[in-house]
Amino acid sequence: MTNLKTKLEETRTLIDGHLDSLLPLPIGKEKRVCEAMRYSILGGGKALRPFLVLIISDILGVKQQNALNVACALEMVHTYSLIHDDLPAMDNDTMRRGKPTNHIQFDEATAILAGDALLTKAFEILSMHQTHSDATIRCKLISYLAKAAGTSGMIGGQMMDLIGEKTPLALDEIERMQALKTGALLKYACTTPAIMAQENGAIFKALETYANAIGLMFQITDDILDIEGDSLVVGKTLGKDAIARKSTFVSVLGLDTAKENIKILAHKAENAIACFGEKSEPLKQTIHFILTRNK
Amino acid sequence: MTNLKTKLEETRTLIDGHLDSLLPLPIGKEKRVCEAMRYSILGGGKALRPFLVLIISDILGVKQQNALNVACALEMVHTYSLIHDDLPAMDNDTMRRGKPTNHIQFDEATAILAGDALLTKAFEILSMHQTHSDATIRCKLISYLAKAAGTSGMIGGQMMDLIGEKTPLALDEIERMQALKTGALLKYACTTPAIMAQENGAIFKALETYANAIGLMFQITDDILDIEGDSLVVGKTLGKDAIARKSTFVSVLGLDTAKENIKILAHKAENAIACFGEKSEPLKQTIHFILTRNK
Repeated sequence: MTNLKTKLEETRTLIDGHLDSLLPLPIGKEKRVCEAMRYSILGGGKALRPFLVLIISDILGVKQQNALNVACALEMVHTYSLIHDDLPAMDNDTMRRGKPTNHIQFDEATAILAGDALLTKAFEILSMHQTHSDATIRCKLISYLAKAAGTSGMIGGQMMDLIGEKTPLALDEIERMQALKTGALLKYACTTPAIMAQENGAIFKALETYANAIGLMFQITDDILDIEGDSLVVGKTLGKDAIARKSTFVSVLGLDTAKENIKILAHKAENAIACFGEKSEPLKQTIHFILTRNK
Repeated sequence: MTNLKTKLEETRTLIDGHLDSLLPLPIGKEKRVCEAMRYSILGGGKALRPFLVLIISDILGVKQQNALNVACALEMVHTYSLIHDDLPAMDNDTMRRGKPTNHIQFDEATAILAGDALLTKAFEILSMHQTHSDATIRCKLISYLAKAAGTSGMIGGQMMDLIGEKTPLALDEIERMQALKTGALLKYACTTPAIMAQENGAIFKALETYANAIGLMFQITDDILDIEGDSLVVGKTLGKDAIARKSTFVSVLGLDTAKENIKILAHKAENAIACFGEKSEPLKQTIHFILTRNK
């Protein structure tokens, strides 16, 4: 496990350096929005999605420059969604990754714009020649990101989540919400290397299965952490789901069944990546990382 | 002028039909966000940007299917910016295009998501084969939109505008703010047909000059309407700039000089499009339309 933690930290450093070169410099009268973009994206978070992009790209022989661009674009979309989700009109969170949320540190208007700007920048990056030499592949990456992040993906899931705060969701609806809200971007992280490597058959399918399984694992552990976690370790306010009487995997399945499901999913994820042989080691470690995560 | 008004109405109908086919259908638990997207974009507004895309594409011989996709993507970005700008944390507007703003009709969270989703969808549309058969051109259109809508364009301008509410802006700063906030997307509307037609020289330059001039005209008339307009005709709350003591072209130049400047810009715009001969008629009419607009 130390091995994976070190790798995640190395990824964070690598991604931060690359993000720094891609993000607009804070200059001019409008610099506040650039500062707000940098505040939320640099140095924070586990960088799990960029890690998956880089490690799977490595397995499939994708150029690191290409993988880094996709990883940064994806991290921008992930970060924009966190900034907007934290807003008072949404989850109204004041802490994120152990520091004040964007609208607390800056203000609501700046936070909305910083989110918008990160989303916009992500598409600019994917359109760059450095992301892939083949423009058709770049267009595929763009279309796929828009679908994963839009109403048929993340935004649809967030809308379902907001609806679910008012009316209880059934298990299949919670599953669909998770698949859209967090699953779609995780699937993007795991399968875009296959698109870049033009592997559209069994390899794409195996990565998709792996992504779906770890996405679901991640959400269930998130729900468990909201109950059993330490807010100082996790770095955000906890216990909010129970207070809001929100439907979660834990509230519907119960804690024991939820934990049992995680084990089944871990097994499924491990089977899916067996085809990569020894190379799959970091992906196996990722499964274990999610199984034992406390933040 | 009746001629142009009819053409604008025809464009609105054409664009609405195409938007309807491109927008996600409001189905499933998440349908609220799709309804909110449709609420703000369908049937509303002058559709000036789509009109410019279509009319210039026609002059340059670009396929209408391609032009329609670009026009719809651009209208989505324009509409998302209005939805977010109207939010309580930004301009806090309750009326837009003669009806309640998105967050009043729905709620703040849904309005934020609807804006995010329109922005995301715009990039998906540009990545489609139907937008242009050449993927390299599609990537150019995407990169260009991201720059026009991002911190080096619209978002940067909106940030400057928000800063300008607290500290007065000088004339050159107001000009730069305008060029970013509204000018960048207008320039996109006028010059993307040249990109689609692979006309990168004198024709691109002429359209750029025209766009810059009418963009500035549009903003100055907007500032004048805020003082002299009829809110029932304009369809939004007026007089807000003066109450907020915001720096505008009118507050800095005075009403007479502002009106004089509009005439000079109209002349400049007309000169720029002389190269298109008779075909430039609708573009000339657009100049006259901005000169005489009362909403």
